[in-house]
Amino acid sequence: MTLRFKSAALVGKFQSAGIAEPLNSLAQFLDGLGVEVAVEAETARNVGMSRRRVVAAEDIGRHAEVVVAVGGDGTMLSIGRMIAAFEIPLIGVNQGRLGFMTDIALADMHETLGAMFEGEFEPEARAMIEAEVWRGDSMLLRTQALNDVVVSRGAVGGMIELSVSIDEQFVSNQRSDGLILATPTGSTAYALSANGPILHPRVGGFVLVPVAPHALTNRPIVVSDASRVVVTLTRGGDCRAHFDGQSHAVLNPGDRVAMCRSSHALRLLHPCGYNYFAMLRQKLHWSTIP
Amino acid sequence: MTLRFKSAALVGKFQSAGIAEPLNSLAQFLDGLGVEVAVEAETARNVGMSRRRVVAAEDIGRHAEVVVAVGGDGTMLSIGRMIAAFEIPLIGVNQGRLGFMTDIALADMHETLGAMFEGEFEPEARAMIEAEVWRGDSMLLRTQALNDVVVSRGAVGGMIELSVSIDEQFVSNQRSDGLILATPTGSTAYALSANGPILHPRVGGFVLVPVAPHALTNRPIVVSDASRVVVTLTRGGDCRAHFDGQSHAVLNPGDRVAMCRSSHALRLLHPCGYNYFAMLRQKLHWSTIP
Amino acid sequence: MTLRFKSAALVGKFQSAGIAEPLNSLAQFLDGLGVEVAVEAETARNVGMSRRRVVAAEDIGRHAEVVVAVGGDGTMLSIGRMIAAFEIPLIGVNQGRLGFMTDIALADMHETLGAMFEGEFEPEARAMIEAEVWRGDSMLLRTQALNDVVVSRGAVGGMIELSVSIDEQFVSNQRSDGLILATPTGSTAYALSANGPILHPRVGGFVLVPVAPHALTNRPIVVSDASRVVVTLTRGGDCRAHFDGQSHAVLNPGDRVAMCRSSHALRLLHPCGYNYFAMLRQKLHWSTIP
Amino acid sequence: MTLRFKSAALVGKFQSAGIAEPLNSLAQFLDGLGVEVAVEAETARNVGMSRRRVVAAEDIGRHAEVVVAVGGDGTMLSIGRMIAAFEIPLIGVNQGRLGFMTDIALADMHETLGAMFEGEFEPEARAMIEAEVWRGDSMLLRTQALNDVVVSRGAVGGMIELSVSIDEQFVSNQRSDGLILATPTGSTAYALSANGPILHPRVGGFVLVPVAPHALTNRPIVVSDASRVVVTLTRGGDCRAHFDGQSHAVLNPGDRVAMCRSSHALRLLHPCGYNYFAMLRQKLHWSTIP
Repeated sequence: MTLRFKSAALVGKFQSAGIAEPLNSLAQFLDGLGVEVAVEAETARNVGMSRRRVVAAEDIGRHAEVVVAVGGDGTMLSIGRMIAAFEIPLIGVNQGRLGFMTDIALADMHETLGAMFEGEFEPEARAMIEAEVWRGDSMLLRTQALNDVVVSRGAVGGMIELSVSIDEQFVSNQRSDGLILATPTGSTAYALSANGPILHPRVGGFVLVPVAPHALTNRPIVVSDASRVVVTLTRGGDCRAHFDGQSHAVLNPGDRVAMCRSSHALRLLHPCGYNYFAMLRQKLHWSTIP
Repeated sequence: MTLRFKSAALVGKFQSAGIAEPLNSLAQFLDGLGVEVAVEAETARNVGMSRRRVVAAEDIGRHAEVVVAVGGDGTMLSIGRMIAAFEIPLIGVNQGRLGFMTDIALADMHETLGAMFEGEFEPEARAMIEAEVWRGDSMLLRTQALNDVVVSRGAVGGMIELSVSIDEQFVSNQRSDGLILATPTGSTAYALSANGPILHPRVGGFVLVPVAPHALTNRPIVVSDASRVVVTLTRGGDCRAHFDGQSHAVLNPGDRVAMCRSSHALRLLHPCGYNYFAMLRQKLHWSTIP
Repeated sequence: MTLRFKSAALVGKFQSAGIAEPLNSLAQFLDGLGVEVAVEAETARNVGMSRRRVVAAEDIGRHAEVVVAVGGDGTMLSIGRMIAAFEIPLIGVNQGRLGFMTDIALADMHETLGAMFEGEFEPEARAMIEAEVWRGDSMLLRTQALNDVVVSRGAVGGMIELSVSIDEQFVSNQRSDGLILATPTGSTAYALSANGPILHPRVGGFVLVPVAPHALTNRPIVVSDASRVVVTLTRGGDCRAHFDGQSHAVLNPGDRVAMCRSSHALRLLHPCGYNYFAMLRQKLHWSTIP
Repeated sequence: MTLRFKSAALVGKFQSAGIAEPLNSLAQFLDGLGVEVAVEAETARNVGMSRRRVVAAEDIGRHAEVVVAVGGDGTMLSIGRMIAAFEIPLIGVNQGRLGFMTDIALADMHETLGAMFEGEFEPEARAMIEAEVWRGDSMLLRTQALNDVVVSRGAVGGMIELSVSIDEQFVSNQRSDGLILATPTGSTAYALSANGPILHPRVGGFVLVPVAPHALTNRPIVVSDASRVVVTLTRGGDCRAHFDGQSHAVLNPGDRVAMCRSSHALRLLHPCGYNYFAMLRQKLHWSTIP
């Protein structure tokens, strides 16, 4: 038996107590396979795995050949955004019920991961968005998003007004609670709640979804992932750009959020036999009965 | 001045009386440019242009270098489906108000077409669907669609039940009034009424949109245009597959409609400065006011 | 013990084989209570209960004090429409899974019905629509609907055009696949699939829901149940008005469907403790987890 | 000629410069009719009408027989909420384009108001919501809303979780951006953007509309206006209840917003011939072309 990955970093759901036992079990299992195991620093602190090798989240990409996350889609999102630049693949184990990205059940973990560490897996690249926030000539921020970039109004002050352009072409001025640019991965998250379509991960596109738009004809638009989308805040005293719901920037009127496809993609590894639609069926309660 | 196209075929809106005058004016204008003008047979009969060279719609691809259609989106759809296989480009002049595809106003026709026949235009390829209808081992029909393939219930008998698979993977069983597979071009037609998203023409994908689905979680799905989508009628006594709303096949339970990207694309020519979003703004009454 | 109802008529799901056993069990149980039992004619033929007293569906209202239907929502709809004029109440037992109207499980049938026949129940009146179809000065048809009246296009020929007026005031001209006028009872049926809202049964209103409307601003409208809604077919060669999906009338251009609240309402009897929202939660998979 | 109203109070759009001229013109016109004119205090300050009799907004109900507002729907909302308790009627003149509530054009103001002050008008009562915010046993706030009560998440922190009950019956737990309870008047405002139905003003109901709900089956529900709706914040660190978008209360987890029909209604006066659907048609660009 040859190992396909000789080292792995483990990440657990943030501040979850129940994660200690499965993480320890997983670490021992990988030890047994001969895999060199490191634990992400926050996770180690949370579950008391400090006697193992500990690496900071931002350094994981340099110290392991694969990352295994145990938790939910939120856990995948956090770690996925950090490691994408290092081209290191990510495997997701769901702690509770099936996630959109965590496709291995705790109960099957050893058997499934055993096969995957021997090289039996289905790789999948998930496109990401690179976003920049501009104020006049100054770029305030550049970051990546795996799910979505959301420009949205604050707690008070009503709708905001946004001007949208795609590839330097003006699209429209919109009044709404906000505007989402979602990747295929993000299309099943917040964008779906806002009436956006599902984008299969192999679609080379992103979807722009308005949230509670004033104009009933403002509909979701799917654009090529070669597009550059710029959203300018034209009116609204309380507005933010949110990146994967994990970080944000406050926007002033006139500020622009410029978005395009990131040069990095998240590399997911699925067990053999993975089926995107089977996952959707289960998550969305689609019928299988003919 | 060099002509980019030395011959053109003219097509007018089906059975439209008002089309005669602009078509004659157009023909004379093209005569003046030195373009060899032919008229599609139905059109010639309708507007009494029988002294000109007349060609059958299905032969146009062999007898002209470009087609100019005067009418609406329906006219573009009819002729577009026929000429796509010949790789001959199509220009649309709108008889009344702006269409999604007919982007030249009658009033500007001479000036705009003059420039276009000299080579000043923006070409655009519009993806098409190739659809096959299968009953057991027999293929009953193969055709092309520029807008959409719609599998829908008949006048009586209630919802139909469909089984959907994509790339040999089962997706779901759906109970609904029907299911649309739309190209980016068709995404602004019937699919939009059924709550589908808009797909920019450069998106390499199609969108599956359920019509009045029984399950509220059956949402539009955008799939890569490399996908093969198969829809099987599992239950329903009165069901048809419609191709661009222009032809149809009656389906029996068990019949399959298999769809993939056509090897042909419709080549549209737009005037320089054409802007897809400006057209959408006008058609959907989107706001330009900041 | 005093019986609240001394006679009952039983109705079973149309052409269902599995209905015989529960119906016989139910009849014997009611015999035991001292209730005089009759069986609806179709049902009797289907399940072989011909030695019992048999009554035609349209006569049930004259021969029993209460109707018990065993089946699904379709069964309730069929019999409900027939008996509403007689003011006789209806109890629904669901053969399989919970229905929107059949709220008693087969397993609990004896216990629950025992209590109900002694007078322990919660009555509920469900509003119905009275619909008339007019051609010029002639009324072609008058009927009742418990769920909805649907004016919809046929199998071929594309969208239809309808003109809507409410209380003699013109509302709009609509191009669509169809238009639904639903009661609160019907608001969770076809209208829900067409993006209509849920109307609680105590709301004194009906909802007009367009099906796949061409204009994106054509939205569901809830009108008072004191309104008179008239839908005129203005264009479309193949159109029908459907009443509860159980009968229909072919419409010619110019024909009108005039609808108002029926003077009859269906009287449903629920077990004590019945909760409309609990039923919705179960049918629509709403979350109870805080 | 007999005056139907002998005194009137004028209110202008908040901080609008252009309002001075039409307000002065209106005041002089009413002077000429013999109507005793007062000006709301803020308005007087804004447009420099301080030589006229000035009344505080909250006192208008005691000092005038009718209120005439010049501005937009926002102006009507502000003054409407204040005067409803006094049963004093309100007339709306739109400063710019037609509003949902301001139905008299500036250009027709004199002629139309002349007739209305002589008693030629169509009165309409618009239901309002009475809302209370409770923390444990303490009522923190009681207020009225003409459009809607919106419980919604703040700028950061993601979706909130709400528990909804109607008439003491538990409905569901919802995760969303927020939840709207709208009157018929408010059904064409924010609730419409969030995919709610239109409620005709004569419908005795309110509509509960979730904003971007996590669960795709959480749909708008129309409830009788005799209902008591309670929304409890079960989870979310940053949440507010907004009343007509004009005032708000910060909610802590466990806080409840209890809502029912207000004992007051806003009395609107429309010119004779007023047509609710004509107004909708114009605002929503509905087709009149058959």
